[in-house]
Amino acid sequence: MRFLISITYDGTNFKGFQKQVKLRTIQGEIEKVLKRINNNQEVDLIASGRTDALVHAKEQKAHFDLTIKIKTYKLKQALNSYLPKDIYVNKVCEVSNNFHARYNVKEKTYEYVINMGEYNPLERNYIYQYNKLLNIKKIKKALKYLIGEHDFKAFVSADEKRNNYVRIINKVKIKKCKNKLMITFTGNGFLKHMIRNIIGVIILISEGKKETSYMNEILNNQNKNHFNITAPAGGLYLKKVRYKEEK
Amino acid sequence: MRFLISITYDGTNFKGFQKQVKLRTIQGEIEKVLKRINNNQEVDLIASGRTDALVHAKEQKAHFDLTIKIKTYKLKQALNSYLPKDIYVNKVCEVSNNFHARYNVKEKTYEYVINMGEYNPLERNYIYQYNKLLNIKKIKKALKYLIGEHDFKAFVSADEKRNNYVRIINKVKIKKCKNKLMITFTGNGFLKHMIRNIIGVIILISEGKKETSYMNEILNNQNKNHFNITAPAGGLYLKKVRYKEEK
Repeated sequence: MRFLISITYDGTNFKGFQKQVKLRTIQGEIEKVLKRINNNQEVDLIASGRTDALVHAKEQKAHFDLTIKIKTYKLKQALNSYLPKDIYVNKVCEVSNNFHARYNVKEKTYEYVINMGEYNPLERNYIYQYNKLLNIKKIKKALKYLIGEHDFKAFVSADEKRNNYVRIINKVKIKKCKNKLMITFTGNGFLKHMIRNIIGVIILISEGKKETSYMNEILNNQNKNHFNITAPAGGLYLKKVRYKEEK
Repeated sequence: MRFLISITYDGTNFKGFQKQVKLRTIQGEIEKVLKRINNNQEVDLIASGRTDALVHAKEQKAHFDLTIKIKTYKLKQALNSYLPKDIYVNKVCEVSNNFHARYNVKEKTYEYVINMGEYNPLERNYIYQYNKLLNIKKIKKALKYLIGEHDFKAFVSADEKRNNYVRIINKVKIKKCKNKLMITFTGNGFLKHMIRNIIGVIILISEGKKETSYMNEILNNQNKNHFNITAPAGGLYLKKVRYKEEK
């Protein structure tokens, strides 16, 4: 039986999503619990994609196959009773055997949150403590360049080698609530450090170190700029994953 | 020179406010930094009161004397550059030598936050994960009994020995925002575990295990009930401390 689960996690105390020997990862923790539930037989967890160390998820999705038979509500209960406190499974569904949590992704939404007010130690792992006002008008203008299909190679971590860096961003929304700025990106896929580098660029632009058109220049040049402006991981959330068969 | 500071802290990784040998405490961390600023001479930090392990503060207040001369903005800068990331000094004022951060307290406000929605790992250290609906009508009724001057001995931690357990609660406010319940208590002083036990009692009442009048019974009996219902520390915030000389 194949199951699809929705997962919320606090990335603070993990070395990222992907399993790594001897390191505490989200995949590692969930697979340990799945093995326990699955009569001690190994289970592979296939997620919609990885998230980096310290990045959070409000709704990550992943599938896996169990050899045992179990009702979805029972499986949800079992998962949550064994999982550590910083991972929670919100939802468990049964899916067909040709469903794939990575290949079937239609759209993902990420959110990045910035505190423009004074430093707040209570938020330090959850909201980027920029602690200065941002020029929202300039930021909005710069973000508009991202909409559509682009080669995002210039925004991607140097250690991310791929054949194809083309992705489509369908929507960018910016919301201000008191001193917090929330920027959401919806698209067909995101690459390593892509959003954190985009945030880095809009901060350069907001600070007047670059013109708003700089965003467009990077997109068109496509060469890695090594600008070294990756915004902190703790402000980033995987917020939603949508699949092709969903309405 | 005597200084009064406002402090925000994330209590998660501290063994409470009060200095203890070999344990990481808020007072311990701040005094270490103050000594460094004060030419390596010891400085005593006198707070408005303690907070327990895991309890947070949005605005704790404390005073201390320095033998060196320093401008308030410089002192704020120095404190925040040396303090760990989970403590932040919001404000530094110079005060007269007869000001006392504990004795001069007029009023304190504490806030307790409860999640009535589904478990959220991102909030686990900051909001009590009760994860069930509460009966707000009953809770409001029960909380009304607290207003005024009462002997709170029955609500106090067994290890808290005092001559006087009489305190005045001036205001209790209850606010619901989506699935979150925020309850604020304003009064002339609060005892160890007092608010967390009050929360425990309102939960008993909400669940129908006790009548709303049970709150009044406990207040009138004054004997320690050892009900063992102390709500988790992570949902509690010291929110505000007001002094006599303030308008």
